[in-house]
Amino acid sequence: MQMTDISGVFASGVHCGIKASGVLDLAYIFVPECVGSAVVLSQNAIRSVTLDHNETVFNTNPIKLMVINSGNANSVTGPIGKTHVNQTVATASQAFGCKPSEVGVASTGIIGVPLPIDCIINGLQSFSGNEKNGDACATAILTTDLVKKTAARSITIQGQTVHFCGITKGSGMIAPNMATTLGFIVTNVAINNATCHQMLQSAINDSYNMLSVDTDQSTNDMVSLQSTGEIALSLSDTDQKAIQHALTELCIDLAKQIAKDGEGATHVVEVHVLGAQSKNDAKRVAKLVVDSPLVKTAIAGEDPNWGRILMALGKDPSVVIDHAALTIDVNNELIFSNGAPHHANKTQLAKVMKHPTIVITIHIGNGSYEATAWGCDLTHGYIDINTAYN
Amino acid sequence: MQMTDISGVFASGVHCGIKASGVLDLAYIFVPECVGSAVVLSQNAIRSVTLDHNETVFNTNPIKLMVINSGNANSVTGPIGKTHVNQTVATASQAFGCKPSEVGVASTGIIGVPLPIDCIINGLQSFSGNEKNGDACATAILTTDLVKKTAARSITIQGQTVHFCGITKGSGMIAPNMATTLGFIVTNVAINNATCHQMLQSAINDSYNMLSVDTDQSTNDMVSLQSTGEIALSLSDTDQKAIQHALTELCIDLAKQIAKDGEGATHVVEVHVLGAQSKNDAKRVAKLVVDSPLVKTAIAGEDPNWGRILMALGKDPSVVIDHAALTIDVNNELIFSNGAPHHANKTQLAKVMKHPTIVITIHIGNGSYEATAWGCDLTHGYIDINTAYN
Repeated sequence: MQMTDISGVFASGVHCGIKASGVLDLAYIFVPECVGSAVVLSQNAIRSVTLDHNETVFNTNPIKLMVINSGNANSVTGPIGKTHVNQTVATASQAFGCKPSEVGVASTGIIGVPLPIDCIINGLQSFSGNEKNGDACATAILTTDLVKKTAARSITIQGQTVHFCGITKGSGMIAPNMATTLGFIVTNVAINNATCHQMLQSAINDSYNMLSVDTDQSTNDMVSLQSTGEIALSLSDTDQKAIQHALTELCIDLAKQIAKDGEGATHVVEVHVLGAQSKNDAKRVAKLVVDSPLVKTAIAGEDPNWGRILMALGKDPSVVIDHAALTIDVNNELIFSNGAPHHANKTQLAKVMKHPTIVITIHIGNGSYEATAWGCDLTHGYIDINTAYN
Repeated sequence: MQMTDISGVFASGVHCGIKASGVLDLAYIFVPECVGSAVVLSQNAIRSVTLDHNETVFNTNPIKLMVINSGNANSVTGPIGKTHVNQTVATASQAFGCKPSEVGVASTGIIGVPLPIDCIINGLQSFSGNEKNGDACATAILTTDLVKKTAARSITIQGQTVHFCGITKGSGMIAPNMATTLGFIVTNVAINNATCHQMLQSAINDSYNMLSVDTDQSTNDMVSLQSTGEIALSLSDTDQKAIQHALTELCIDLAKQIAKDGEGATHVVEVHVLGAQSKNDAKRVAKLVVDSPLVKTAIAGEDPNWGRILMALGKDPSVVIDHAALTIDVNNELIFSNGAPHHANKTQLAKVMKHPTIVITIHIGNGSYEATAWGCDLTHGYIDINTAYN
């Protein structure tokens, strides 16, 4: 399903003129009866004015309308950047019949170049506001992504079907600039701003924040959640847990699609860490392994290199590693067992390393915490994409 | 000069049989009258038994003898690893006439494979202990380094000439395993263990610890300092500062040689950060920029990409960046000035980007702290070296 299959969610995308002729570059997601919303923004100290705007409005009231353009990040363009956000918001609020404080904005693409604001204004005025074209919306937010990225989760709560639908983009490059990740999620379950924020932050912590293509982060990254309010229930703890689980699973699905489309990637990498003494330790180790250039190049070379995995998992001396319990397998083939190399069947190992998804499972001790991180391998493709720029 | 030019320092290297026929793979540095020594060890939680040994003996007394082998890291080989360290130390102490607690050890090369201990024992017994062959020593510690790395600094203190001489290795790969960095420094100025440690740690903080080829760190990394005690002076504060400066400069020289020989590197990268509100902020930003894969690939593509530099310097939200003061130049060509892109002369910019050393200078505000980090670009060469393994 796509997000416009949810009652009360309208979305579409058009070509407004930022990108080459015919390529979709302006999208909206409109939830006219929105009862709650939240946004998680990039922590980068250098950030787009679009994020400043969102930080303010998402704290004020439910955000009914998201306006998204691709091809230009509206970042580091000087004072004109803020003016362009204001013009976009003013035009959109008039066109869609909502208050300026109910409009969020997102931009992705080249930085340091002023937004072609006339294109945006004309594009916004071309929408009717009641389009049900989730596909065009999911397409219009892409930059150099090779594929569109959408995900959905549905669960039954008190006999009613709760949906979460999301779209995301990443992580390609535009001309001389930087990768960006954006995500937009809608749901029909009625949750207010505070609950939206709490649930979205929790989901992001276990999904987007555990994803890394190259450890670099964008000035424009953001993920939003909007609720149509259709299904208003008094939620039990169990219901809330089920809803949180569905949202987290959806975010993981989107994050994995980004990893799969990572620049130059030939393998998706999933690192499970088990037996940690804290959740934080488990996350730290999973990220160290998934981020290690030597682990990433080993996987590109289809090398089940336990030496590099050991090196990477030991990089943070504050994490407690029980050497005697240390066990590693790759796609269910044991390569390191209870502190010593395990002489695996080489033919079988070579075979599992050819799989497009490499799952590395690491037991670092006998604690009860675990975590998972996602990423991709590091190949000549990454170097090709990121050394060529004009 | 080389380290054996210092009176009371003996060193050499031989082929003992770990590596291919004729390739030097066993070295020693012998300072029979050593009055002080110190070592700085890898912080990796997974570390070689050689480091455990050094942690003990360097805390006990001045270390007269360093025994170094290349081709095998004696790491993650199980209980036999510790036995091999003990056998190495016992043989060396007999051969050189010193106590076992006066012998330090260092190994670099493949991990997970037991040390061919007979080769080491025979090799150690072939030394006379009074060789003056610093060149063979500097060669025997290398793995896949393309060049030998030595540095020296001399200063005059109270009319006497104080020398520091050092050798280092890194950062190539051995078979399926990991990069390692080792460094060994000797001096003729009399400084005790405590002073050696304090001075070495300070020098390492501003040199090796500000160096990154790929953010991955070894299980075997270590740098040692040994003093012959020849020049025993009562040092004034000014003298101490001058000596510290010479040692730090020597460590920076060695670290830069490693960056230059970084796997696949076509440019050395030096990032100066100025105007920070603390030393820590300055270091953090310098490392974030030098470590960024997108900055590294931009430099490989000879692209003076201020967008990627901005993205990287903003990655730690705890660092205070004064956007209005933010100014960046590359090899003295201004590319970003007081918070806005600077339209530099493109021909001149293209020219400076071809230089083998790229110096990026970043003013992040009006604070008084600064720091420098060193690294290299990220190229197809790095991918070639690290995806190929057997």
